[in-house]
Amino acid sequence: MADRLARRIPEPTVVRLPVYQRALLELSAGGVSTVSSAELAEAAGVNAAKVRKDLSHLGTYGTPGTGYDVDFLLGQIRRELGLDREWQVVIAGMGNLGHALARSQGFSTQNFRTVALLDVDPAKIGEVVAGQRIRHLSELAVIAATANPAIGVIASPASAAQDVCDRLVAAGVGAILNFAPAILTVPQSVLLRQVDFSVELQVLAFFVAHPEAATGAEDASDSPL
Amino acid sequence: MADRLARRIPEPTVVRLPVYQRALLELSAGGVSTVSSAELAEAAGVNAAKVRKDLSHLGTYGTPGTGYDVDFLLGQIRRELGLDREWQVVIAGMGNLGHALARSQGFSTQNFRTVALLDVDPAKIGEVVAGQRIRHLSELAVIAATANPAIGVIASPASAAQDVCDRLVAAGVGAILNFAPAILTVPQSVLLRQVDFSVELQVLAFFVAHPEAATGAEDASDSPL
Repeated sequence: MADRLARRIPEPTVVRLPVYQRALLELSAGGVSTVSSAELAEAAGVNAAKVRKDLSHLGTYGTPGTGYDVDFLLGQIRRELGLDREWQVVIAGMGNLGHALARSQGFSTQNFRTVALLDVDPAKIGEVVAGQRIRHLSELAVIAATANPAIGVIASPASAAQDVCDRLVAAGVGAILNFAPAILTVPQSVLLRQVDFSVELQVLAFFVAHPEAATGAEDASDSPL
Repeated sequence: MADRLARRIPEPTVVRLPVYQRALLELSAGGVSTVSSAELAEAAGVNAAKVRKDLSHLGTYGTPGTGYDVDFLLGQIRRELGLDREWQVVIAGMGNLGHALARSQGFSTQNFRTVALLDVDPAKIGEVVAGQRIRHLSELAVIAATANPAIGVIASPASAAQDVCDRLVAAGVGAILNFAPAILTVPQSVLLRQVDFSVELQVLAFFVAHPEAATGAEDASDSPL
């Protein structure tokens, strides 16, 4: 059943689930136990029709006149996102970005656990960031053999990114989040997601240049956020 | 005409245009003058059908048997993304992330020009990062009056993000890229895009937990990347 549901969830909905989760966590912390699609839409910054459609992909429709049970919905989203298990993460590249990522909330909550911080710069090896000592990239295979990380984060310079990526893959890391501005090649069995700050800026510039498109995007069911 | 085209370009396509652009720039630098949709797909890490569909939104169909003219396509994408003008950017919050952003390629190329780096920490004011001196957030109104920045980037802690956002809006900044893990409220006239590292990790975790969904996403026309 979970497999059949997963197959049907469009990626733009998947991308919004963490946004709903954050909004729901804030509501839950504020003592709110039920929420309407309009309230959740307001809190998450999308429209109510999109909330209802997204949540219907989880098989959740809410109660007419009452809305959604906040804690039940939180549990459903966590399960759907695979956050009912722990994810071991290694971060490779401990410049400013690596530091920012190692210290960010997202990498220390939500059942993501950073098991290693890696770099090749002798000046950085041994430095402690967010409770972890930075180790040399060459230790990756040894670390992977015991910690078995599922997710590798690349925060290296672009020129080193493919080499770092190859080492992660060789160490058995099956999912890679790449922050380096480089297009990487991975075997088909490895999941790769690219985060590119310049893409975000360019998309923003597109909508400033085409304000009529931004208005339209609000209602487009395939808008990622 | 530009307006009518813009109205028709779906946001997932907009998000892929910078990816195509980067791939085309690499091809162009390598002396390649024409490219097939299959080659561009390979370089950009998407499938060929998606490339053809995305580029058709620009009114570009390529020449059968030859493909697309690399430089012509680059010009079209630049125009569509509004990169034929210069964008003034302010970055508010100069911790590790602010430093990483100020130094990143995306913020120094592509006609984005960082006109101010802002913080409130006296220890940071005056430090020079990527050629810019960090100034106090209270100077924002004065800076905005002369530099007229179109885009504000929030890299502050979550607790300060709404205040920073309000100051950017008050200073007339019309588009905001928010890296702080907080849901912000802006007037309807202001564009807001959220970048959340934990969302990226969670989306990756979803696809690791549901490998069959990742395979499907490759072919889904609404997949953002």
